Amino acid sequence: MTAYRQLETHYQEISVIDEAASILNWDYAVMLPNGASENRAEHLALLAKLSHERRQDARVGDWLAEAEGKLDAADEEEAFWQRANLREIERSYRQATAIPADLVEAKSKAMTRCETRWRQARADADFSSVLPELTEVWNLTRQEAEILSEASGLSLYDALLDLYEPDGRAADIDALFEDYSAFLPDFLEAVLSKQSAQGAFQAPSGPFSIQDQRALGERVMGVLGFNFENGRLDVSTHPFCGGTPADVRMTTRYDEADFTSALMGVIHETGHGLYEQGLPLTWRKQPVGKARGMVMHESQSLFMEMQVGRSPAFLSYLRPMLTEAFGGSGEAWSLENLKRLYSKVERSLIRVEADEVTYPAHVILRYRLERAVLAGDLALADLPGAWNQGMQEALGVQPPHDGLGCLQDIHWYMGAIGYFPTYSLGAMAAAQLAEAARAAVPDFDDLLAQGDLAPVLEWLRRAVHGKASSLSTQDILREATGKPLCAAAFKAHLQSRYLGG
Amino acid sequence: MTAYRQLETHYQEISVIDEAASILNWDYAVMLPNGASENRAEHLALLAKLSHERRQDARVGDWLAEAEGKLDAADEEEAFWQRANLREIERSYRQATAIPADLVEAKSKAMTRCETRWRQARADADFSSVLPELTEVWNLTRQEAEILSEASGLSLYDALLDLYEPDGRAADIDALFEDYSAFLPDFLEAVLSKQSAQGAFQAPSGPFSIQDQRALGERVMGVLGFNFENGRLDVSTHPFCGGTPADVRMTTRYDEADFTSALMGVIHETGHGLYEQGLPLTWRKQPVGKARGMVMHESQSLFMEMQVGRSPAFLSYLRPMLTEAFGGSGEAWSLENLKRLYSKVERSLIRVEADEVTYPAHVILRYRLERAVLAGDLALADLPGAWNQGMQEALGVQPPHDGLGCLQDIHWYMGAIGYFPTYSLGAMAAAQLAEAARAAVPDFDDLLAQGDLAPVLEWLRRAVHGKASSLSTQDILREATGKPLCAAAFKAHLQSRYLGG
Repeated sequence: MTAYRQLETHYQEISVIDEAASILNWDYAVMLPNGASENRAEHLALLAKLSHERRQDARVGDWLAEAEGKLDAADEEEAFWQRANLREIERSYRQATAIPADLVEAKSKAMTRCETRWRQARADADFSSVLPELTEVWNLTRQEAEILSEASGLSLYDALLDLYEPDGRAADIDALFEDYSAFLPDFLEAVLSKQSAQGAFQAPSGPFSIQDQRALGERVMGVLGFNFENGRLDVSTHPFCGGTPADVRMTTRYDEADFTSALMGVIHETGHGLYEQGLPLTWRKQPVGKARGMVMHESQSLFMEMQVGRSPAFLSYLRPMLTEAFGGSGEAWSLENLKRLYSKVERSLIRVEADEVTYPAHVILRYRLERAVLAGDLALADLPGAWNQGMQEALGVQPPHDGLGCLQDIHWYMGAIGYFPTYSLGAMAAAQLAEAARAAVPDFDDLLAQGDLAPVLEWLRRAVHGKASSLSTQDILREATGKPLCAAAFKAHLQSRYLGG
Repeated sequence: MTAYRQLETHYQEISVIDEAASILNWDYAVMLPNGASENRAEHLALLAKLSHERRQDARVGDWLAEAEGKLDAADEEEAFWQRANLREIERSYRQATAIPADLVEAKSKAMTRCETRWRQARADADFSSVLPELTEVWNLTRQEAEILSEASGLSLYDALLDLYEPDGRAADIDALFEDYSAFLPDFLEAVLSKQSAQGAFQAPSGPFSIQDQRALGERVMGVLGFNFENGRLDVSTHPFCGGTPADVRMTTRYDEADFTSALMGVIHETGHGLYEQGLPLTWRKQPVGKARGMVMHESQSLFMEMQVGRSPAFLSYLRPMLTEAFGGSGEAWSLENLKRLYSKVERSLIRVEADEVTYPAHVILRYRLERAVLAGDLALADLPGAWNQGMQEALGVQPPHDGLGCLQDIHWYMGAIGYFPTYSLGAMAAAQLAEAARAAVPDFDDLLAQGDLAPVLEWLRRAVHGKASSLSTQDILREATGKPLCAAAFKAHLQSRYLGG
């Protein structure tokens, strides 16, 4: 076997281990009896160990050296993918070998301690009670960043960002976020006055049975192109999209008093699921065949939620499905009301409940704070004050307590630093892709209004899903939209949806 | 670390791998989207490979030699378990190393081919169409038996039997089955005349919603002592009990026209589940801490189904639960009718639908035929004729075609030879254990009539579950009942239930 084929065989096995862990993680969130979490943790820890051992196997380094310039390809197309695969394998090997095992273990333990303490601290709105554990997690994450930075030549922050968004760079993010920050204040003011003049939407009144909501959600998933031969929809406390490309496990949660958020949540997760189902069959078990990174993944969920799901055209298609599913009638079920309901903007405290206009402000604040802490410019003890001041400046609201402030998100308490910006970069990428899709697919909005998503999905399959990790995020966007990621399409989308018409 | 502790650490890892596979197997049967079976087969094949590699690791042999007589125990109790653990590790190592990898792979492929062909052959009632594949599976299984026999000194049949029922011996089985075969004809005749004189039972008329059946099943599981903190009940085509001791995954299937078989099926699987949940916490990850074998496992499911579930005492407790669950009233819901319904005996063709009186006849026929084939006394091509003749002699019925004859069970077509007898040995063990429990637990039947299973479960925990594999099946029975396995208690149970009262 050539060195290249040795690498493929090795990474095939790693993928199978990771896939098994992914299904067991889904089961953990969806099926696990209360008393079995320690038992499941044993399974997941062992699979993580087996995967990590293989990722850092010294033979990978030898095979990489030997495969350098010696591919095993039948044609130029295959050679292109093999080269990209070697690049992704090298990234994986560099990251896996950089961090010493004792640091991995120390961080894993610190994270578990911190997460447990954070849950209580959030409930008590008591930041100081979790500060020692948070400090430990940050110290270990900083050590990790220093080692990764050393190995890659990236800055501390970029070295962490690279774990979630390969080739992502803070310098690019700075420019995009400054652009949006300059745009937001006047725009938000204008949107709020317009919506205030229009008056409030009417909430359709329930109850909406879980059975009906589930049937509706699955019907809409089908309309969007989700393949139920290779996936399913279930229930978990925190909705997510997991499983494997051949077996996509989506979840949602239902509120019998309000169907609207589960429905849009299902559409959001369907975007993630379609990406996974659209990854190239031949390469799925290789690093090059995985989804590109968090930005591209979030761009796909937000494409479906924000560019398709909440669009007036698609809402006009959904409306009769809704009234049929729930037997609704009257003004609350009018298209006009549904549009208002699904485009309500407000200055609010909680990121996960924020609308698409203010959401980036939540993210930008977190991005600035985590960069300041990592740079040593902000002490963790001063986080609550900086948070509250930042919220005041960005959105004019102040959390009444830290439970609704800097304790609301789990990310930092799990050592996930460099993750937050990917949400808003994903929103921008979604808008930029939708702009290109609209230009490439004739009668885009008419198709949405007819519930005919096939041509749009076909475009996404070619432009994004089928590319997997063969190109960088920026190159995928360049090929699909003619430019690197910028905020222009996102701003234009917001102008049109919230101030146009 | 001492050699003994090395072994413990090694087998702990094997257990965790096997547990992960067990959950993924459950998911395969219960949750898997249609298009994902190949994907799941990859996960299961890799985990099987990782487990097998560890089982046959040459270091196990070294550690076993080194640990010989050098335990690492704090007291005599621990030393007892460690000695038993070494014995089970040795059995596992002997079996894992005996069979060459190419035979394992050849058999696995032959089994897959044969199973696929068998499904079609059964549907077509065409034995000859699967005969070539069946011959291949038998030839490979015979090779396996020869190697195992060589390694262990056991006969060919005993070497295979040992895979399902450690220390099980055909000589013992012969005696038990001859005993039962002599008993059955007159007894069956007497039962059938009695039941015929009584007239038929009335089937309660449905429909019985799946939701109501599920709620009832879970309620009954709770009564029997199933701990839902460490297990759950779901639906699959073929009911089974899988998962792990900390996370028991039971399944059933519902028929909206007839609640009776799902209910008793749930009670049966609960017996399996209680055994798993009752395995000793400290030893669960070691070979000595697993369930003893198929005989003991089946004894636990049949204890719950036959000795508890279908007993007049427990049926009297169930009756008001049933009428409450389904709103039933009238003669069909009388205790007398339920007793008849749940003790109906008939000469029938299909093992899995047979009553407890005739079930052993189905098993004994299969046992005799598989022994004859393995001994070279019966050609596989002559199986259908021998089957039909055997059914005629044992139960006076003849399959109209092989689909209802020698094609009905998957076992032989999967190379599971030596498995069938464990069903009926389990039934005998269940009766023998129930006899002992009745003597040990005061007011046994009154407790059943009150739905107070705690004292009975407590007894099973001590007598069976808590022993795990620290003793042989025969020694567990000797300690619990004062004698080795025999047919007497089973025959007495049948006399009492079907001809007594």
